[in-house]
Amino acid sequence: MADRADAHELRLDVALGPRSYAIQVVSGRPAHLGSFTRRALDATWAGKACRSALVITDQNLASLPHAANCEGALEHAGIACRRAVLAPGEATKNLGSASRLFDELVGMKADRHTAVIALGGGVIGDLAGFVAATYARGLPLLMVPTSLLAQVDSSVGGKVGINHPQAKNIIGAFHQPIGVWIDTDTLNTLPPRELRCGLAEVVKYGVILDAAFFDELEAASAAIIARQPEALRAIVARCCRLKAEVVTRDEREETGLRAVLNFGHTVGHAIEAVAGYNGHFQHGEAVAAGMVAECRLAQRLGWIDPALTERLILLLDRFGLPSSISGLDPAQLLEAMSRDKKNQRGKVRFVLPRCLGRVELTDAAGPEDVLHALNATGA
Amino acid sequence: MADRADAHELRLDVALGPRSYAIQVVSGRPAHLGSFTRRALDATWAGKACRSALVITDQNLASLPHAANCEGALEHAGIACRRAVLAPGEATKNLGSASRLFDELVGMKADRHTAVIALGGGVIGDLAGFVAATYARGLPLLMVPTSLLAQVDSSVGGKVGINHPQAKNIIGAFHQPIGVWIDTDTLNTLPPRELRCGLAEVVKYGVILDAAFFDELEAASAAIIARQPEALRAIVARCCRLKAEVVTRDEREETGLRAVLNFGHTVGHAIEAVAGYNGHFQHGEAVAAGMVAECRLAQRLGWIDPALTERLILLLDRFGLPSSISGLDPAQLLEAMSRDKKNQRGKVRFVLPRCLGRVELTDAAGPEDVLHALNATGA
Repeated sequence: MADRADAHELRLDVALGPRSYAIQVVSGRPAHLGSFTRRALDATWAGKACRSALVITDQNLASLPHAANCEGALEHAGIACRRAVLAPGEATKNLGSASRLFDELVGMKADRHTAVIALGGGVIGDLAGFVAATYARGLPLLMVPTSLLAQVDSSVGGKVGINHPQAKNIIGAFHQPIGVWIDTDTLNTLPPRELRCGLAEVVKYGVILDAAFFDELEAASAAIIARQPEALRAIVARCCRLKAEVVTRDEREETGLRAVLNFGHTVGHAIEAVAGYNGHFQHGEAVAAGMVAECRLAQRLGWIDPALTERLILLLDRFGLPSSISGLDPAQLLEAMSRDKKNQRGKVRFVLPRCLGRVELTDAAGPEDVLHALNATGA
Repeated sequence: MADRADAHELRLDVALGPRSYAIQVVSGRPAHLGSFTRRALDATWAGKACRSALVITDQNLASLPHAANCEGALEHAGIACRRAVLAPGEATKNLGSASRLFDELVGMKADRHTAVIALGGGVIGDLAGFVAATYARGLPLLMVPTSLLAQVDSSVGGKVGINHPQAKNIIGAFHQPIGVWIDTDTLNTLPPRELRCGLAEVVKYGVILDAAFFDELEAASAAIIARQPEALRAIVARCCRLKAEVVTRDEREETGLRAVLNFGHTVGHAIEAVAGYNGHFQHGEAVAAGMVAECRLAQRLGWIDPALTERLILLLDRFGLPSSISGLDPAQLLEAMSRDKKNQRGKVRFVLPRCLGRVELTDAAGPEDVLHALNATGA
């Protein structure tokens, strides 16, 4: 992948049988979205008849050229667009927003040949994807992720969902998109904090699957922070390929393989739940601190030595990401983890590193181990 | 199937690859439900770890022995039960009820190894199934249908969902159960109107797939109305087998084959929407009148002669089912049909008979044909 990173358009194919789709990574080519979508639709059973779409986005993107560019390209390809604009932020990802979007679809007399276009970050992708998965038992879904986090993580893999007030992402479905369109130019307008949050997931791929990639991130960190297009395309495409490889081998999270992607997330989701989705921790920041806590837990179990944790903290620091739980109560975090979807028979399960580039799912950590690791990650 | 109808336990296997499951039809053997469920769970990836379940039912069933019997059998098989009781009736099948059930699951710290038991009629099956499909991206679902309508129709096939105020069943998913347990003794306490509603779907199977079955229904109508167990087991198993054959050939309603099951339902759903789910038309009654209207539409297109419609009206009448739209406004019905899920490019599509036992999906009927057929079915 790295040697193709200078090309203007990188294409990856996610092989999932009848649910296969393409990911296109470009820089500054919004008009090509129309023909990409038309081809993606025509490859599905529903495609030829698709002539209309609901573009779901948020207020930030609606005020930028991205939304109008996207709709212009779709209209040019013969797809009439209606736009639904939501408030930005994690608090939007709830059943009330889904209900409003169902109203929109009923109002436009949507049928199974109406496409849903998710134009935005992870919140929009998850929410729009859930609505696409459940309206008329499944509408064609195009992901157009505009944040780094969504580009490298949530837009690939088919997991869609919304939050319950007490449990993040607990209401959801598996619904593969018909395609993923990524234009790294959308990252130019991304607030620095949003870029950092995406980088947390990028670092995660190095720890869980690809030690060489971790090395490259350490070497290229300055170019990445400076948002050099080649550097961004390279890391986005690398992460998408790594994630696609996992997803194709465990589409519905049944073999345990896909669970490796949850490194940093068991603690991370608990941090978000306890902090209350109030903006004190954004998702990527919670994952960053979660990765550090989970490395400490791996140390406690004797799986890794402290040098790996220190190396992780240094790279996170270079990207401006936190490596502490900032005074949150470890006992409350533990309680929140008891609702994690990976749990079995009431035991909290973690994905922990064995070495750089390899992780394992385990229930070997007891509550006292977890509290110890959280206390060590406290300040 | 008919020659095995005297056996106490009839078993059908629905072949859907990794989502295959069994349907068991018994009379008066509630205790066997536990071992059936354990075997069904153990055959799934999630099964061995399943030790708890949420039993979703309604107030009518909670006051009968069925709910306690079901829970007793499950507890005996090592599955701890919590019960959620909802108000009976179609009005319960909405997003608010789903939200309440998500709260219950979060409250019991449900994970992907918690089973959902849908104990009730079609409303409970559809709603509980939707919740099972979308909580933690899919919980194991056991269907225990207690109404004739649910036994012969909604419990088999994997279609789950809830209503939008303006469109029935528009929010939903495909989620196959791990098993279907049918005890015809639950029909002994069913109000006569509920039994009649189920018979509308039974008659439908004869019209769309099995002319010989239609003949048998005409011959056995007295035994069926008298609720003779052998007669009930025979028709329930026959309908389940017919439906399973269709479902296995078109699991996700993509080839058009599964659409044959929608005979009577395009008009039927519109009748329910216009009448407002207020109890004036129950689902089976709406389908009965819908079948008559759609036969008249087939006559209008020259597909069948009036004798088939008359024969249908006679059999419906013997079962106490309506064959008229009872003064509902044809224009309002047409407007409601414009939101039907089968529609393509804005055209209303119907499943219409070519002869007894064979139907076809068509968009050949224009609005004026539909209005003509509705007017002829008006009084």
